[in-house]
Amino acid sequence: MAEETKRRILSGMRPTGKLHLGNYYGALYNWLKLQEEYECYYFVADWHALTTEYDAPQPLGGYIAEMVIDWLAVGLDPQRSTIFVQSAIPEHAELYLIFGMFTPVPWLERVPTYKDQMQELSHKELATYGFLGYPVLQAADILVYKAHGVPVGVDQVPHVEMTREIARRFNHLYKPIFPEPEALLAEVPKLTGTDGRKMSKSYDNCIYLSDPPEVMARKVSRMVTDVGRPYRKDPGEPDRCLAFPFHRLNLPVEKIEEIMTACRSAELGCVECKKLLAEALVANLTPIYEKRRFYEARPDMVREVLLQGNKQAREQARRTMHEVREAIAFHLDFQLWV
Amino acid sequence: MAEETKRRILSGMRPTGKLHLGNYYGALYNWLKLQEEYECYYFVADWHALTTEYDAPQPLGGYIAEMVIDWLAVGLDPQRSTIFVQSAIPEHAELYLIFGMFTPVPWLERVPTYKDQMQELSHKELATYGFLGYPVLQAADILVYKAHGVPVGVDQVPHVEMTREIARRFNHLYKPIFPEPEALLAEVPKLTGTDGRKMSKSYDNCIYLSDPPEVMARKVSRMVTDVGRPYRKDPGEPDRCLAFPFHRLNLPVEKIEEIMTACRSAELGCVECKKLLAEALVANLTPIYEKRRFYEARPDMVREVLLQGNKQAREQARRTMHEVREAIAFHLDFQLWV
Repeated sequence: MAEETKRRILSGMRPTGKLHLGNYYGALYNWLKLQEEYECYYFVADWHALTTEYDAPQPLGGYIAEMVIDWLAVGLDPQRSTIFVQSAIPEHAELYLIFGMFTPVPWLERVPTYKDQMQELSHKELATYGFLGYPVLQAADILVYKAHGVPVGVDQVPHVEMTREIARRFNHLYKPIFPEPEALLAEVPKLTGTDGRKMSKSYDNCIYLSDPPEVMARKVSRMVTDVGRPYRKDPGEPDRCLAFPFHRLNLPVEKIEEIMTACRSAELGCVECKKLLAEALVANLTPIYEKRRFYEARPDMVREVLLQGNKQAREQARRTMHEVREAIAFHLDFQLWV
Repeated sequence: MAEETKRRILSGMRPTGKLHLGNYYGALYNWLKLQEEYECYYFVADWHALTTEYDAPQPLGGYIAEMVIDWLAVGLDPQRSTIFVQSAIPEHAELYLIFGMFTPVPWLERVPTYKDQMQELSHKELATYGFLGYPVLQAADILVYKAHGVPVGVDQVPHVEMTREIARRFNHLYKPIFPEPEALLAEVPKLTGTDGRKMSKSYDNCIYLSDPPEVMARKVSRMVTDVGRPYRKDPGEPDRCLAFPFHRLNLPVEKIEEIMTACRSAELGCVECKKLLAEALVANLTPIYEKRRFYEARPDMVREVLLQGNKQAREQARRTMHEVREAIAFHLDFQLWV
């Protein structure tokens, strides 16, 4: 297909506060690459965060700025990408309401993540209307910008499929105005936290983009490596080593080859090996850390980025909603609204 | 309780086109009375109409103007009441989204009208997300204006109860900003259509406020009366007569007493009796009919009423949403929004 204009990408992240290396290598890294090729819309999914945090949303407000500072620090560029906050664009809520009118409840109950998360978070009362309708809101997020592609992890593919179904149903019932967006699967490295469990704020095992170099180095030095190598003299196995995925992301290929050999022959011990990693990681991430400090000291600049992004996003969202209202023939209020 | 300011009332009607006498005596008549005592918000529930009409919403747009012309014709006064269109106030959608986050699905499944309507409209695919969440949207409609009272029919009482529960839950989870609105039950006369079935557009048995006097008189003359009085010479029973509720609403008490006696003694036949009714009805409704013609000829005036009402409603809705966002501590975007 000939493409005259850049195709549009949309992705969002819940405001969970400062981002860690799992977020960086798992999502942001890919966002940065997409920014080169596509017209990107990246948003803070604060309304989505309410689906699980409705009982204690107070910190979410503060988390937004922290997260956006990380985005800017890693290199998301407001000149090229539209960076905005979901709850600042009421058109998401309006389109969610309209999509809900023709989305069968059984479609929503069938979404695999629905029952999974209900179980995973069984200590919370999650059988809420908003939690059930999460994929409807996601469809509105995506389609209000008529995005063509959505970078997601494998577990999110059914949500994009739901968005496609909702787009098809709208197009069929009213007027074909929506594209059917595609899931863009990125290769996501398997990274664990410093203790070997999933990297997660709640486990206190994260390396943050906001960690100063010395903290970062210390955290690396404490990383769980190859549990099958109890002693220095034992040969190690990089494929089993939980720190090794970080090596792959931070060291040059030749160096990695060298390390693998030295580990397997027990020439290289984990302590020294992690020193190599710490150096490389710190070298790679210090520019991000510095840029982070720059934005931290300039909250007005961050605010300005979001205000500008909200404005741009809203213009597009408004355009789409005009078409939507016309398609469902809410003619009178269509006129009244503008 | 001492009341320093007028208490606020809210009620809405789905845009179903021109209104008939069932709508007039069943709801509008009460709205007019409330207008004397309360600060009233009356709205066109066009989004609500989508819950059942999502597959063919095209006529809804045109219905809005027709219905609002009837409202103005019967005497709703834009100087005293705020008359507006639901879909012109995006804050309804936003509050619906937020309320949904903490509203348990089982609350919604328990609403009696939910299963009733599912059965009644079983030819339609109504197991939609929006249909399930209808009471959540209704709660948003009411609470975004912090209404104290909601005039409803008996069948709607559980919806107002749901609104109270949602208000309580919000107040408990975040901050007590919402009143718990009360259902205001009005006595609703039991009126049937000209054929004796429920007065409904789909049965083609309605007398419309927009019917010219001669049409109205002709429709009255064809009304089913007392089916237990097959012949003129048989004595009739006003309590069984399907036209008699209209007599009660349109004739002076003395005249009604007279008619009851004359009917029971077979002095008065149904044909003559309906002539009396037609005269009284036409006399009462002609001013409405004339006023209707006035507005019909001035669509810009109707539009202006709605634009003004939308503006007023939106100001109040905005104020409430500021408080809501502050209460759930969406501080940053709270700032970003304004």
